[in-house]
Amino acid sequence: MNVEIFGYFAAILTTAAFLPQLIKTLKTKKANDVSLTTLVMFILGVLSWIIYGYNISSNPILIANLITLILNLLILIAKVYFSKTFNQQ
Amino acid sequence: MNVEIFGYFAAILTTAAFLPQLIKTLKTKKANDVSLTTLVMFILGVLSWIIYGYNISSNPILIANLITLILNLLILIAKVYFSKTFNQQ
Repeated sequence: MNVEIFGYFAAILTTAAFLPQLIKTLKTKKANDVSLTTLVMFILGVLSWIIYGYNISSNPILIANLITLILNLLILIAKVYFSKTFNQQ
Repeated sequence: MNVEIFGYFAAILTTAAFLPQLIKTLKTKKANDVSLTTLVMFILGVLSWIIYGYNISSNPILIANLITLILNLLILIAKVYFSKTFNQQ
């Protein structure tokens, strides 16, 4: 059995996982319970995974983290926007 | 420059990133804005990364995902517990 399958399965799951969070945040127009520190640290970490994946030529790591980066940047933008627009606190 | 450094840096960041979320959830006693679907999908994905990391002998992937798994399981447990105990909704 090709071990790359686990890599791609992992890549799809840990990438697609952030789509429900983005949809929930856009629907409820708030993400107060989502930690800003977590989002910023996670985005910086994902950027590092992209560099690592590129260097060890791991396509699952590279592709997964590129999409994860985009989704988490959108969650971060939505959180900051909604907290300024709808939930002054 | 050793490429493993990026792997370990990425591992530390994307792992430690979930600590502020866990602390925030424990402090505020709620995580209503955190998507349950995201948590479950992410945990399943992290389990797959552990299998992949073990098979390609990548210590950064293996160690990072083991700790990420524990932190996200704790966030999931805290979210479900607090939603049943304090925030009936």
